[in-house]
Amino acid sequence: MIGPDIDRLIQLLAKLPGLGPRSARRVALHLIKRRDSLMAPLGEALAAAASSIRTCSICGNLDSNDPCTICADHHRDSGLLCVVEDVGDLWALERTGAFRGRYHVLGGTLSALDGIGPDDLSIPSLLERASRPEVQEVILALNATVGGQTTAHYLSDRLTPCGVRLSRLAHGVPVGGELDYLDDGTLTAALRSRRSL
Amino acid sequence: MIGPDIDRLIQLLAKLPGLGPRSARRVALHLIKRRDSLMAPLGEALAAAASSIRTCSICGNLDSNDPCTICADHHRDSGLLCVVEDVGDLWALERTGAFRGRYHVLGGTLSALDGIGPDDLSIPSLLERASRPEVQEVILALNATVGGQTTAHYLSDRLTPCGVRLSRLAHGVPVGGELDYLDDGTLTAALRSRRSL
Repeated sequence: MIGPDIDRLIQLLAKLPGLGPRSARRVALHLIKRRDSLMAPLGEALAAAASSIRTCSICGNLDSNDPCTICADHHRDSGLLCVVEDVGDLWALERTGAFRGRYHVLGGTLSALDGIGPDDLSIPSLLERASRPEVQEVILALNATVGGQTTAHYLSDRLTPCGVRLSRLAHGVPVGGELDYLDDGTLTAALRSRRSL
Repeated sequence: MIGPDIDRLIQLLAKLPGLGPRSARRVALHLIKRRDSLMAPLGEALAAAASSIRTCSICGNLDSNDPCTICADHHRDSGLLCVVEDVGDLWALERTGAFRGRYHVLGGTLSALDGIGPDDLSIPSLLERASRPEVQEVILALNATVGGQTTAHYLSDRLTPCGVRLSRLAHGVPVGGELDYLDDGTLTAALRSRRSL
């Protein structure tokens, strides 16, 4: 007989991605044993984030401010617009520190099967942003999946009339990767896009 | 550039068992996208649990009440005392629904290496409980590990003078298990403790 407070906590934890009923119980027990050092701060962080985080009305990023920190940063290059599927992809690019332009989060990919058309994603606002005179290049940083590439193809058709330079991420051997373990498609792409030394 | 609220949330989530920085980011994004349906309720459940859950002064269980629901339940058999290492083990036994007695949570196992002696665990209160006239049997449901078995051995020495019946969980083939995949020790134990049909 587990008490109702603990039971409810386990039920909610089991809804998190990557956690099942067993790992949710493990996490719950870990938290209960660290009530002051972890459980209470995590509860506060969740409540704070739930009330403060909103979607940036310009780019679709998630932040405590609207416009988000990236859109509000005057040091970032307004001429470069990087289109990503999801906020997780934006975070991944931000971690590299290699991109100093601005983002546009689509919120998914086009999918005829799921009934997701251009108007379900933030494509109209992307076309509007890309038409602005300061934007020089749009980087389509979409996933190398069927959905991502279909969307990239559609976007490149729609963005061409805007008169901006279009680019996509390079395909090739991952840094630290071994050729023997790479799939044929990646290896073919890496060979075709070989660079002179 | 991830905002400070999200960053703090990811840092705290990464401290949970089984989650690393990458899965913590995934969980954070999942939560942020379900602010009202999951994030806010989880924050409340954590805050509620952090303030309400306490250790039962009788058995060492974790519950919103002290004495815990199990100790306060008059329908449970006071003659049966099941000794477990940790609250997680108590939860596991409760899930089976096969035990209707009471528990005693030790809070760990004896360990000379880590300097954990009998007084660091709830052994004195166990001896006191086992000496009560209503207690007829003490089940040592400790893990079948070196630490658990050492502790069981020590406890059986100390509990013998209390005049209670002592027992331990059976060793054997797990239900649904295949003999081919079982270790030699378990198979030997299952053979030795064979039951007539």
